[in-house]
Amino acid sequence: MSQPEPGAVVDLLGVLAYAELTAFDRLAEDARLAPTLTGRAALARMAAAEIAHHVRLTERLTELGADPAAAMAPFTSALDTFHESTRPSTWLEGLVKAYVGDGLAADFYREIAAFLPEPDRDLVLEVLDDTGHADFAVREVRAAIEADRRLAGRLALWGRRLVGEAITRSQAVIAEHDGLAELIITGTGDLAGVGRLIDRITSAHTQRMTTLGLNP
Amino acid sequence: MSQPEPGAVVDLLGVLAYAELTAFDRLAEDARLAPTLTGRAALARMAAAEIAHHVRLTERLTELGADPAAAMAPFTSALDTFHESTRPSTWLEGLVKAYVGDGLAADFYREIAAFLPEPDRDLVLEVLDDTGHADFAVREVRAAIEADRRLAGRLALWGRRLVGEAITRSQAVIAEHDGLAELIITGTGDLAGVGRLIDRITSAHTQRMTTLGLNP
Repeated sequence: MSQPEPGAVVDLLGVLAYAELTAFDRLAEDARLAPTLTGRAALARMAAAEIAHHVRLTERLTELGADPAAAMAPFTSALDTFHESTRPSTWLEGLVKAYVGDGLAADFYREIAAFLPEPDRDLVLEVLDDTGHADFAVREVRAAIEADRRLAGRLALWGRRLVGEAITRSQAVIAEHDGLAELIITGTGDLAGVGRLIDRITSAHTQRMTTLGLNP
Repeated sequence: MSQPEPGAVVDLLGVLAYAELTAFDRLAEDARLAPTLTGRAALARMAAAEIAHHVRLTERLTELGADPAAAMAPFTSALDTFHESTRPSTWLEGLVKAYVGDGLAADFYREIAAFLPEPDRDLVLEVLDDTGHADFAVREVRAAIEADRRLAGRLALWGRRLVGEAITRSQAVIAEHDGLAELIITGTGDLAGVGRLIDRITSAHTQRMTTLGLNP
Protein backbone atom coordinates (compact mmCIF):
# COMPACT_ATOMS: atom_id res chain seq x y z
CA MET A 1 0.00 0.00 0.00
CA SER A 2 1.42 3.40 -0.92
CA GLN A 3 2.08 5.91 1.90
CA PRO A 4 -0.63 8.55 2.22
CA GLU A 5 0.36 12.16 1.74
CA PRO A 6 1.41 13.82 5.01
CA GLY A 7 -1.33 16.39 4.35
CA ALA A 8 -4.00 13.67 4.44
CA VAL A 9 -2.76 12.47 7.85
CA VAL A 10 -2.89 16.03 9.21
CA ASP A 11 -6.39 16.40 7.72
CA LEU A 12 -7.63 13.24 9.40
CA LEU A 13 -6.07 14.05 12.79
CA GLY A 14 -7.39 17.62 12.47
CA VAL A 15 -10.98 16.61 11.76
CA LEU A 16 -10.84 14.07 14.58
CA ALA A 17 -9.38 16.61 17.04
CA TYR A 18 -12.22 18.97 16.26
CA ALA A 19 -14.76 16.15 16.39
CA GLU A 20 -13.58 15.33 19.93
CA LEU A 21 -13.87 18.99 20.95
CA THR A 22 -17.45 19.15 19.64
CA ALA A 23 -18.21 15.79 21.28
CA PHE A 24 -17.08 17.34 24.55
CA ASP A 25 -19.32 20.37 23.97
CA ARG A 26 -22.30 18.27 23.09
CA LEU A 27 -21.94 15.85 26.00
CA ALA A 28 -21.51 18.80 28.37
CA GLU A 29 -24.69 20.34 26.98
CA ASP A 30 -26.61 17.06 27.11
CA ALA A 31 -25.46 16.54 30.70
CA ARG A 32 -27.65 19.49 31.64
CA LEU A 33 -30.69 17.66 30.23
CA ALA A 34 -30.07 14.70 32.53
CA PRO A 35 -33.03 13.83 34.76
CA THR A 36 -30.75 12.85 37.68
CA LEU A 37 -27.50 14.09 39.23
CA THR A 38 -26.01 10.64 38.61
CA GLY A 39 -26.83 10.81 34.89
CA ARG A 40 -25.46 14.33 34.71
CA ALA A 41 -22.19 13.31 36.35
CA ALA A 42 -21.94 10.25 34.07
CA LEU A 43 -22.20 12.41 30.95
CA ALA A 44 -19.75 14.97 32.33
CA ARG A 45 -17.22 12.16 32.89
CA MET A 46 -17.64 11.02 29.29
CA ALA A 47 -17.13 14.58 28.08
CA ALA A 48 -13.89 14.71 30.06
CA ALA A 49 -12.72 11.51 28.35
CA GLU A 50 -13.30 13.11 24.93
CA ILE A 51 -11.03 15.97 25.92
CA ALA A 52 -8.27 13.54 26.87
CA HIS A 53 -8.55 12.18 23.30
CA HIS A 54 -8.53 15.69 21.89
CA VAL A 55 -5.30 16.43 23.77
CA ARG A 56 -3.63 13.26 22.41
CA LEU A 57 -4.52 14.27 18.84
CA THR A 58 -3.32 17.87 19.20
CA GLU A 59 -0.04 16.65 20.71
CA ARG A 60 0.49 14.38 17.71
CA LEU A 61 -0.36 17.22 15.32
CA THR A 62 2.26 19.39 17.04
CA GLU A 63 4.78 16.52 16.75
CA LEU A 64 4.08 16.40 13.01
CA GLY A 65 4.88 20.11 12.83
CA ALA A 66 1.26 21.15 12.30
CA ASP A 67 -0.57 23.84 14.25
CA PRO A 68 -3.57 22.11 15.88
CA ALA A 69 -5.87 25.11 15.50
CA ALA A 70 -4.97 25.42 11.81
CA ALA A 71 -5.46 21.68 11.28
CA MET A 72 -8.93 21.82 12.86
CA ALA A 73 -10.07 25.04 11.19
CA PRO A 74 -11.08 23.58 7.77
CA PHE A 75 -13.56 21.24 9.47
CA THR A 76 -15.24 23.47 12.04
CA SER A 77 -17.96 24.70 9.72
CA ALA A 78 -19.11 21.25 8.50
CA LEU A 79 -19.12 19.74 11.99
CA ASP A 80 -20.81 22.77 13.55
CA THR A 81 -23.50 22.67 10.86
CA PHE A 82 -24.10 18.99 11.52
CA HIS A 83 -24.53 19.60 15.24
CA GLU A 84 -26.68 22.69 14.77
CA SER A 85 -29.02 20.80 12.45
CA THR A 86 -29.28 17.81 14.80
CA ARG A 87 -29.60 19.47 18.19
CA PRO A 88 -31.36 17.05 20.57
CA SER A 89 -34.40 18.49 22.29
CA THR A 90 -34.62 15.78 24.95
CA TRP A 91 -32.29 13.71 27.09
CA LEU A 92 -33.18 10.57 25.09
CA GLU A 93 -32.55 12.23 21.72
CA GLY A 94 -29.15 13.27 23.06
CA LEU A 95 -28.35 9.69 24.04
CA VAL A 96 -29.49 8.29 20.68
CA LYS A 97 -27.41 10.90 18.90
CA ALA A 98 -24.36 10.08 21.00
CA TYR A 99 -24.73 6.33 20.44
CA VAL A 100 -25.88 6.22 16.83
CA GLY A 101 -24.11 9.33 15.55
CA ASP A 102 -20.80 8.80 17.32
CA GLY A 103 -20.88 5.12 16.47
CA LEU A 104 -21.31 5.90 12.78
CA ALA A 105 -18.54 8.51 12.85
CA ALA A 106 -16.21 6.17 14.74
CA ASP A 107 -16.78 3.37 12.18
CA PHE A 108 -16.01 5.75 9.37
CA TYR A 109 -12.82 7.10 10.99
CA ARG A 110 -11.71 3.55 11.83
CA GLU A 111 -12.06 2.52 8.18
CA ILE A 112 -9.86 5.43 7.14
CA ALA A 113 -7.38 4.79 9.96
CA ALA A 114 -6.67 1.37 8.44
CA PHE A 115 -5.00 3.20 5.53
CA LEU A 116 -2.66 5.18 7.82
CA PRO A 117 0.93 4.25 8.72
CA GLU A 118 1.91 3.79 12.39
CA PRO A 119 1.90 5.41 14.91
CA ASP A 120 -1.10 7.32 13.59
CA ARG A 121 -3.23 4.26 12.92
CA ASP A 122 -2.96 3.14 16.54
CA LEU A 123 -3.52 6.65 17.85
CA VAL A 124 -6.75 7.02 15.87
CA LEU A 125 -8.02 3.60 16.92
CA GLU A 126 -7.22 4.45 20.53
CA VAL A 127 -9.04 7.79 20.61
CA LEU A 128 -12.05 6.14 18.95
CA ASP A 129 -12.35 3.73 21.85
CA ASP A 130 -15.74 4.00 23.44
CA THR A 131 -15.67 6.11 26.61
CA GLY A 132 -18.41 4.13 28.32
CA HIS A 133 -21.07 6.17 26.59
CA ALA A 134 -22.40 3.31 24.50
CA ASP A 135 -23.43 1.03 27.36
CA PHE A 136 -24.87 3.94 29.29
CA ALA A 137 -26.93 5.15 26.33
CA VAL A 138 -28.22 1.69 25.46
CA ARG A 139 -29.29 1.05 29.05
CA GLU A 140 -31.11 4.39 29.42
CA VAL A 141 -32.83 4.30 26.01
CA ARG A 142 -34.02 0.70 26.35
CA ALA A 143 -35.38 1.37 29.83
CA ALA A 144 -37.22 4.45 28.57
CA ILE A 145 -38.76 2.58 25.61
CA GLU A 146 -39.87 -0.25 27.89
CA ALA A 147 -41.60 2.28 30.10
CA ASP A 148 -43.27 4.01 27.16
CA ARG A 149 -43.50 2.09 23.86
CA ARG A 150 -44.56 5.19 21.90
CA LEU A 151 -41.04 6.58 22.27
CA ALA A 152 -39.67 3.89 19.93
CA GLY A 153 -41.24 5.33 16.78
CA ARG A 154 -40.16 8.88 17.48
CA LEU A 155 -36.60 7.90 18.37
CA ALA A 156 -36.31 5.64 15.31
CA LEU A 157 -37.25 8.60 13.12
CA TRP A 158 -34.65 10.71 14.93
CA GLY A 159 -32.01 8.01 14.32
CA ARG A 160 -32.76 8.01 10.58
CA ARG A 161 -32.56 11.79 10.45
CA LEU A 162 -29.14 11.71 12.14
CA VAL A 163 -27.77 9.26 9.58
CA GLY A 164 -29.10 11.30 6.68
CA GLU A 165 -27.46 14.47 7.98
CA ALA A 166 -24.21 12.64 8.78
CA ILE A 167 -23.95 11.25 5.23
CA THR A 168 -24.65 14.64 3.65
CA ARG A 169 -22.00 16.36 5.79
CA SER A 170 -19.35 13.65 5.30
CA GLN A 171 -19.74 13.78 1.55
CA ALA A 172 -19.28 17.55 1.64
CA VAL A 173 -16.15 17.29 3.80
CA ILE A 174 -14.56 14.62 1.61
CA ALA A 175 -15.40 16.51 -1.58
CA GLU A 176 -13.62 19.59 -0.21
CA HIS A 177 -10.47 17.76 0.92
CA ASP A 178 -8.62 16.06 -1.92
CA GLY A 179 -6.15 14.43 0.49
CA LEU A 180 -8.93 12.64 2.37
CA ALA A 181 -10.71 11.61 -0.85
CA GLU A 182 -7.45 10.25 -2.27
CA LEU A 183 -6.74 8.38 0.97
CA ILE A 184 -10.11 6.63 0.81
CA ILE A 185 -9.97 5.75 -2.88
CA THR A 186 -6.37 4.52 -2.69
CA GLY A 187 -7.00 2.66 0.56
CA THR A 188 -10.11 0.82 -0.61
CA GLY A 189 -8.51 0.02 -3.98
CA ASP A 190 -11.35 1.13 -6.25
CA LEU A 191 -14.98 2.17 -6.33
CA ALA A 192 -16.12 -1.36 -5.49
CA GLY A 193 -13.94 -1.07 -2.38
CA VAL A 194 -15.65 2.19 -1.46
CA GLY A 195 -18.98 0.42 -1.87
CA ARG A 196 -17.94 -2.36 0.49
CA LEU A 197 -16.76 0.22 3.03
CA ILE A 198 -20.17 1.90 2.92
CA ASP A 199 -21.85 -1.52 3.30
CA ARG A 200 -19.85 -2.29 6.41
CA ILE A 201 -20.68 1.07 7.97
CA THR A 202 -24.37 0.75 7.12
CA SER A 203 -24.72 -2.72 8.59
CA ALA A 204 -22.99 -1.66 11.82
CA HIS A 205 -25.46 1.22 12.01
CA THR A 206 -28.43 -1.13 11.55
CA GLN A 207 -27.00 -3.28 14.33
CA ARG A 208 -26.80 -0.29 16.68
CA MET A 209 -30.39 0.79 16.02
CA THR A 210 -31.53 -2.78 16.76
CA THR A 211 -29.50 -2.82 19.99
CA LEU A 212 -31.35 0.30 21.10
CA GLY A 213 -34.65 -1.41 20.34
CA LEU A 214 -35.35 0.83 17.33
CA ASN A 215 -36.31 0.00 13.76
CA PRO A 216 -33.34 0.96 11.55
CA MET B 1 -9.12 19.81 68.26
CA SER B 2 -12.29 17.73 68.56
CA GLN B 3 -13.25 15.47 65.68
CA PRO B 4 -15.94 16.98 63.43
CA GLU B 5 -19.18 15.09 63.12
CA PRO B 6 -19.16 12.59 60.22
CA GLY B 7 -22.19 14.43 58.84
CA ALA B 8 -20.16 17.63 58.50
CA VAL B 9 -17.48 15.83 56.49
CA VAL B 10 -20.11 14.39 54.14
CA ASP B 11 -21.65 17.87 53.84
CA LEU B 12 -18.33 19.43 52.91
CA LEU B 13 -17.41 16.70 50.41
CA GLY B 14 -20.94 16.86 49.00
CA VAL B 15 -20.96 20.61 48.44
CA LEU B 16 -17.48 20.38 46.89
CA ALA B 17 -18.48 17.50 44.61
CA TYR B 18 -21.40 19.53 43.32
CA ALA B 19 -19.24 22.66 43.07
CA GLU B 20 -16.85 20.74 40.80
CA LEU B 21 -19.74 19.52 38.65
CA THR B 22 -21.04 23.08 38.22
CA ALA B 23 -17.49 24.31 37.58
CA PHE B 24 -17.34 21.77 34.76
CA ASP B 25 -20.65 22.99 33.37
CA ARG B 26 -19.63 26.59 33.53
CA LEU B 27 -16.20 26.11 31.98
CA ALA B 28 -17.79 24.04 29.22
CA GLU B 29 -20.28 26.83 28.59
CA ASP B 30 -17.62 29.56 28.71
CA ALA B 31 -15.48 27.54 26.31
CA ARG B 32 -18.10 28.27 23.67
CA LEU B 33 -17.56 32.02 24.16
CA ALA B 34 -13.85 31.67 23.41
CA PRO B 35 -12.65 33.89 20.55
CA THR B 36 -10.18 31.24 19.32
CA LEU B 37 -10.09 27.46 18.94
CA THR B 38 -7.01 27.41 21.19
CA GLY B 39 -8.84 29.28 23.97
CA ARG B 40 -11.84 27.00 23.57
CA ALA B 41 -9.69 23.87 23.86
CA ALA B 42 -7.86 25.35 26.89
CA LEU B 43 -11.13 25.88 28.76
CA ALA B 44 -12.42 22.45 27.78
CA ARG B 45 -9.25 20.89 29.23
CA MET B 46 -9.80 22.77 32.51
CA ALA B 47 -13.40 21.58 32.61
CA ALA B 48 -12.14 18.00 32.23
CA ALA B 49 -9.78 18.53 35.19
CA GLU B 50 -12.72 19.61 37.37
CA ILE B 51 -14.48 16.36 36.56
CA ALA B 52 -11.45 14.38 37.66
CA HIS B 53 -11.77 16.18 41.02
CA HIS B 54 -15.49 15.50 41.12
CA VAL B 55 -14.82 11.78 40.62
CA ARG B 56 -12.26 11.74 43.49
CA LEU B 57 -14.81 13.33 45.83
CA THR B 58 -17.67 11.01 44.89
CA GLU B 59 -15.38 7.99 45.34
CA ARG B 60 -14.52 9.19 48.85
CA LEU B 61 -18.20 9.79 49.63
CA THR B 62 -18.97 6.21 48.57
CA GLU B 63 -16.11 4.98 50.78
CA LEU B 64 -17.67 6.84 53.70
CA GLY B 65 -20.92 4.99 53.03
CA ALA B 66 -22.69 8.06 51.63
CA ASP B 67 -24.61 8.21 48.36
CA PRO B 68 -22.89 10.93 46.26
CA ALA B 69 -26.13 12.16 44.66
CA ALA B 70 -27.79 12.42 48.09
CA ALA B 71 -24.74 14.22 49.52
CA MET B 72 -24.81 16.78 46.69
CA ALA B 73 -28.58 17.29 46.64
CA PRO B 74 -28.86 19.75 49.58
CA PHE B 75 -26.48 22.17 47.83
CA THR B 76 -27.69 22.15 44.24
CA SER B 77 -30.21 24.93 44.68
CA ALA B 78 -27.82 27.43 46.36
CA LEU B 79 -25.03 26.81 43.85
CA ASP B 80 -27.37 26.86 40.85
CA THR B 81 -28.87 30.15 42.06
CA PHE B 82 -25.39 31.64 42.42
CA HIS B 83 -24.46 30.63 38.88
CA GLU B 84 -27.80 31.73 37.42
CA SER B 85 -27.45 35.16 39.01
CA THR B 86 -23.85 35.59 37.84
CA ARG B 87 -23.99 34.28 34.31
CA PRO B 88 -21.14 35.87 32.31
CA SER B 89 -22.22 37.60 29.14
CA THR B 90 -18.74 37.80 27.63
CA TRP B 91 -15.60 35.69 27.42
CA LEU B 92 -13.77 38.10 29.76
CA GLU B 93 -16.54 38.11 32.36
CA GLY B 94 -16.36 34.32 32.33
CA LEU B 95 -12.61 34.41 32.94
CA VAL B 96 -12.93 36.95 35.78
CA LYS B 97 -15.65 34.83 37.34
CA ALA B 98 -13.52 31.70 37.09
CA TYR B 99 -10.46 33.38 38.58
CA VAL B 100 -12.07 35.61 41.23
CA GLY B 101 -15.08 33.45 42.07
CA ASP B 102 -13.31 30.09 42.09
CA GLY B 103 -10.38 31.63 43.98
CA LEU B 104 -12.68 32.91 46.69
CA ALA B 105 -14.52 29.59 46.94
CA ALA B 106 -11.25 27.65 47.04
CA ASP B 107 -9.90 29.85 49.87
CA PHE B 108 -13.06 29.31 51.84
CA TYR B 109 -13.07 25.52 51.37
CA ARG B 110 -9.36 25.39 52.22
CA GLU B 111 -9.99 27.18 55.52
CA ILE B 112 -12.66 24.63 56.41
CA ALA B 113 -10.50 21.72 55.23
CA ALA B 114 -7.95 22.66 57.90
CA PHE B 115 -10.49 21.50 60.51
CA LEU B 116 -10.93 18.06 58.89
CA PRO B 117 -9.14 14.87 59.88
CA GLU B 118 -7.03 12.98 57.33
CA PRO B 119 -7.44 11.68 54.66
CA ASP B 120 -10.21 14.17 53.92
CA ARG B 121 -8.09 17.24 54.59
CA ASP B 122 -5.55 16.22 51.97
CA LEU B 123 -8.24 15.18 49.50
CA VAL B 124 -9.95 18.58 49.73
CA LEU B 125 -6.67 20.48 49.39
CA GLU B 126 -5.79 18.34 46.38
CA VAL B 127 -9.06 18.87 44.51
CA LEU B 128 -8.80 22.61 45.17
CA ASP B 129 -5.48 22.72 43.35
CA ASP B 130 -5.63 25.16 40.51
CA THR B 131 -6.21 23.41 37.19
CA GLY B 132 -4.19 25.94 35.22
CA HIS B 133 -7.15 28.22 34.90
CA ALA B 134 -5.70 31.00 37.07
CA ASP B 135 -2.65 31.71 34.90
CA PHE B 136 -4.69 31.47 31.75
CA ALA B 137 -7.37 33.87 33.02
CA VAL B 138 -4.83 36.40 34.32
CA ARG B 139 -2.96 36.41 31.02
CA GLU B 140 -6.10 36.84 28.90
CA VAL B 141 -7.74 39.50 31.10
CA ARG B 142 -4.56 41.59 31.48
CA ALA B 143 -3.95 41.50 27.73
CA ALA B 144 -7.54 42.57 27.04
CA ILE B 145 -7.34 45.47 29.51
CA GLU B 146 -4.06 46.64 28.02
CA ALA B 147 -5.70 46.68 24.61
CA ASP B 148 -8.76 48.57 25.87
CA ARG B 149 -8.46 50.40 29.19
CA ARG B 150 -12.21 51.01 29.43
CA LEU B 151 -12.71 47.30 30.16
CA ALA B 152 -11.04 47.68 33.58
CA GLY B 153 -13.90 49.63 35.17
CA ARG B 154 -16.61 47.32 33.88
CA LEU B 155 -14.76 44.15 34.90
CA ALA B 156 -13.95 45.57 38.38
CA LEU B 157 -17.66 46.17 38.91
CA TRP B 158 -18.36 42.62 37.78
CA GLY B 159 -15.75 41.30 40.24
CA ARG B 160 -17.42 43.17 43.12
CA ARG B 161 -20.82 41.83 42.13
CA LEU B 162 -19.48 38.26 42.12
CA VAL B 163 -18.13 38.62 45.65
CA GLY B 164 -21.37 40.09 46.93
CA GLU B 165 -23.39 37.20 45.50
CA ALA B 166 -20.88 34.63 46.74
CA ILE B 167 -21.07 35.96 50.31
CA THR B 168 -24.88 36.02 50.30
CA ARG B 169 -25.05 32.43 49.03
CA SER B 170 -22.40 31.07 51.42
CA GLN B 171 -24.16 32.58 54.42
CA ALA B 172 -27.41 30.95 53.33
CA VAL B 173 -25.75 27.55 52.88
CA ILE B 174 -24.00 27.67 56.25
CA ALA B 175 -27.15 28.83 58.01
CA GLU B 176 -29.04 25.83 56.61
CA HIS B 177 -26.40 23.23 57.55
CA ASP B 178 -25.74 23.06 61.26
CA GLY B 179 -22.88 20.59 60.79
CA LEU B 180 -20.97 23.03 58.58
CA ALA B 181 -21.66 25.99 60.89
CA GLU B 182 -20.48 23.98 63.89
CA LEU B 183 -17.36 22.88 62.02
CA ILE B 184 -16.41 26.50 61.31
CA ILE B 185 -17.12 27.84 64.79
CA THR B 186 -15.35 24.95 66.52
CA GLY B 187 -12.45 25.04 64.08
CA THR B 188 -11.80 28.77 64.36
CA GLY B 189 -12.20 28.66 68.15
CA ASP B 190 -14.58 31.60 68.57
CA LEU B 191 -16.16 34.53 66.77
CA ALA B 192 -12.86 36.42 66.69
CA GLY B 193 -11.45 33.37 64.89
CA VAL B 194 -14.28 33.57 62.35
CA GLY B 195 -13.42 37.26 61.89
CA ARG B 196 -9.77 36.44 61.17
CA LEU B 197 -10.86 33.75 58.69
CA ILE B 198 -12.98 36.31 56.82
CA ASP B 199 -10.06 38.78 56.89
CA ARG B 200 -7.73 36.22 55.30
CA ILE B 201 -10.25 35.40 52.58
CA THR B 202 -10.95 39.07 51.86
CA SER B 203 -7.30 40.02 51.55
CA ALA B 204 -6.62 37.11 49.19
CA HIS B 205 -9.54 38.34 47.08
CA THR B 206 -8.11 41.89 46.98
CA GLN B 207 -4.79 40.42 45.88
CA ARG B 208 -6.47 38.52 43.00
CA MET B 209 -8.31 41.60 41.73
CA THR B 210 -5.01 43.53 41.76
CA THR B 211 -3.29 40.70 39.87
CA LEU B 212 -5.94 41.00 37.16
CA GLY B 213 -5.26 44.75 36.97
CA LEU B 214 -8.65 45.61 38.54
CA ASN B 215 -9.55 47.87 41.46
CA PRO B 216 -10.84 45.63 44.27
